[in-house]
Order: sequence, then C-alpha cells, then structure tokens
Amino acid sequence: MGMLGRLFLIGCGPGAVDLLTLRALRRIEEADFVLYDRLINPEILSFARQDSVRLYVGKQATDGGRQQQRINEQIEQALLKGKTVVRLKSGDPLIFGRTAEEIEVAEACQAEIEIVPGITASLAAAAETFVTVTERSELQSFVVTTGRTAKTDTEPDWARLVSPGTCVAVYMAVARAWKIQAALMAAGVPGYLPAKWVERAGQARRRVVDTRLDRLALAAEHEGVQNPAILLLRYPRSLAMTHLKTQVS
Amino acid sequence: MGMLGRLFLIGCGPGAVDLLTLRALRRIEEADFVLYDRLINPEILSFARQDSVRLYVGKQATDGGRQQQRINEQIEQALLKGKTVVRLKSGDPLIFGRTAEEIEVAEACQAEIEIVPGITASLAAAAETFVTVTERSELQSFVVTTGRTAKTDTEPDWARLVSPGTCVAVYMAVARAWKIQAALMAAGVPGYLPAKWVERAGQARRRVVDTRLDRLALAAEHEGVQNPAILLLRYPRSLAMTHLKTQVS
Repeated sequence: MGMLGRLFLIGCGPGAVDLLTLRALRRIEEADFVLYDRLINPEILSFARQDSVRLYVGKQATDGGRQQQRINEQIEQALLKGKTVVRLKSGDPLIFGRTAEEIEVAEACQAEIEIVPGITASLAAAAETFVTVTERSELQSFVVTTGRTAKTDTEPDWARLVSPGTCVAVYMAVARAWKIQAALMAAGVPGYLPAKWVERAGQARRRVVDTRLDRLALAAEHEGVQNPAILLLRYPRSLAMTHLKTQVS
Repeated sequence: MGMLGRLFLIGCGPGAVDLLTLRALRRIEEADFVLYDRLINPEILSFARQDSVRLYVGKQATDGGRQQQRINEQIEQALLKGKTVVRLKSGDPLIFGRTAEEIEVAEACQAEIEIVPGITASLAAAAETFVTVTERSELQSFVVTTGRTAKTDTEPDWARLVSPGTCVAVYMAVARAWKIQAALMAAGVPGYLPAKWVERAGQARRRVVDTRLDRLALAAEHEGVQNPAILLLRYPRSLAMTHLKTQVS
C-alpha cells in the first residue's frame, strides 16, 4: 500500500490576496495538485510550487451536479496516488462551499483531511462598511444565509431570519431583492431599515450601495448591482422599539 | 494642525498565529501603539516594531464599562498625536468585539480607520470538527450568537434561532447550557440533535466534546467544559422532517 494522500480544503477569503491566512499560504505551498474555480484570485495560485499541477474546476451554474462529480473523481485519483491535494475555496470552505461531498471522498480514500478557515465575504463586507454585526444590547446574533430553500421556487421565512437584535448578511441576493423586501415589509419591518448592497466585497473593485428596506430592489436595479454581492441588513433592538411606538401612537 | 492619526481594528483570529491574515500582519508592523487584551496570542505582538508601544488593556468581566472608557481615552490621545494605533481583537473585530465605541472615538478625531476582518472562533471550530455550517438543501443559514439579551436575566427565543435548516454557533455558552437545552426541547427540537462543545477553538489546546441536545448541560458539566467555548448545533431539514414523522406515527 502506498502513502496516504492529503486533502486540504482551504478558505482563500473573498478575493484580495492579503486576506489569505498564513496557514492557507503554507498549505498551498505544499500542494501537488491545486483545484480552483473562477472566484479564486489568480495571484493566489502563484504561491503553489512550480511543479504542482493546477486544475481549473470552475462550475457552470447549469451543470453543478455533473461537474462536482468530475471534481470528486479528480480528488479521489490524486489522493489514491498519495498526493497532497489542495482545494481552493473562496471565502470560508464551510460557508456555501459545498465541501460535504469532497470530505466524503477523502474519508473514503482514508486520506488526511484538513480544513483551513477563511474570511467569509460577509465579514469583509462588514469591515469595509464599518457595520458592527453584533453590538452589546442591540444586536446579539449575526445570520449568514443564501435565503434559498431546497425548492428554488419557495422563499424562506424572511421575517424569522431578520428579527430585532440580528444583523443578516444575504449572499447572492440580487435576484431575490423584491421578494426579500416584500416579505419583510409585510411582516412589519420598518421601510426605513438601513440596507447596504456590497458588490465584490473584499475585492479590488468593491462597490457599496447604501439604501433602505423599502428601496432595496429599486436601488439594486437602478445601480445595476451584480453578484457576487452581499446584502447587509442590520436590525437593532432600539430601532424595532421605536418603530413599534410609532405604530401604536 | 498635525498629521492625522490612523486606527486599525484588526481581527487576529481565534489564537493560532498562523490564522492571522497577511493584511493583519502588515498592519501590525506599521503600528506605533498596539492595544491588546488577554485573548491575544503573545506571539502576535512580536510582529510589532521594536520601538512600538504595547498597551495591555485586558478587561475584567466586572469592570467592562470603566475599562472601555480608559481604552477609548488611550486611543484618542494617540490618534490626536498623529500616531498609528493598532487595536488587536481576537476573532473578527465586528463579532462580539465591541468596536462601535472605538470607531466613534476615531471618527471624532477625524482619524483614518481601517477594519481588518479575522477568522471568527466559530468558523475555526467548524473547520476543526468538519462541521459544514451550510449545506445545499439541508442548511441554508448559519447563525452566530451569544444568546444574551440586553437584560442578562432574560433568555432569547432559542427556538427561533435554532430552527430547521440552520447551523447555530453559540459563543460563551457554558453557563447557559441548561437553559438552551430546556428551551429547545420544550420547543420540540429532537433530543438526539447532535451537539458539539469546542473548547479553545483555533488554539493549541483545543478540545471537542461530542454530545446531543438532551445531554448538553450534563456533558459540559461532566467534561468540565470551560470558556472560551463554542457550542455547535447543526439542525438539517431532513432531521427535522424525520423527527416530525416519528411524532405523528
């Protein structure tokens, strides 16, 4: 029996090379095989050894299942040869990174597995816009969501997610802006709730669109906000209280 | 008027030096003043210039308000002298980092402000235990919470936070284990829901205690789990569905 392979699932952060961790950098340097997709900054690849094999495994939105199957096979083959496989993921590997299958493949090969956490895009968005996602007595919870349910045609319970005392970051929300806006306003969230679209958070050409809940969709359309974009909704308790008093009086 | 000061609020990650980002490292190297507290790995301080001033501003739990006032004053004085002040925060500065006040101080001084995101402890905990915090069709949302409300004697709506399709990370949860367990079980969350205590996530002496919801508090007591600890509760939709069917039949 040969040497066992190693799989490193590495969070590369939202795009800027310097948001890579030191650990990620070192693991990339150890790679025999590097698998990456289109959200990975090409500069990050340059940290891999000259003699490493770099495989582009970018997925088309329409063909996710089959492509993932091919990625799994490539990982498996390399691991069975005892290679060190580095799978680069944008952001953090465990947030919308679809790592579950790749972990299973490596476990089936009895490979060593290491997951290196990364800066997720919503925290880059918050840092760039000075949004404190938690705040003593105002915000106790921070929610990260795609807001997609299993059936792509149904919407999650938005009012449950965006409740007083929470800051919510919605990933890839542009196409769903009208639905989010309508659902939250119907649930009684004030229309003046501040909202931010952060396009390309943590990347060089970042753009921020400041708006409010009742102009959420219009602002996105008007400004031509495109994915990857993070929607930040910050709902402090005091704002909910003030709104309640206005409704009653 | 002299040179304007700069305040860098830097996320240092959960403890391990190599979970620092390259950007954090470079900003620390630029510091005239470094403010840090007890959760910061001393090795990280060694990246600061030899001639920089390092101030320990560790807070006692009992005396948070007054100490924060002193920290604010120290930041203000340095910024008004045109210094580059680096405030080291464990994890990410915007998650339970109490940065709002420090940002205000810097804004009042017209200082340049930069926030450098960091690896938050819950994502280190997830990476170390292979917990996929989101998963296609199973988990759409990831919630990070202290579960503390403004009044320390009231509990948040746990059942609202820990709903099917979410993974929840509770920070500093040890003392509240009984309350979390009781509230969730009363709300119909299955007692066999897998739960993990991750003590000192992202640090050298990490420890993981695998348990389930109905043994949450007992496991913490029995194993002597101590803060800093993250509680990971992963509630996939399929588990909720299975449980519902059991209840009905």
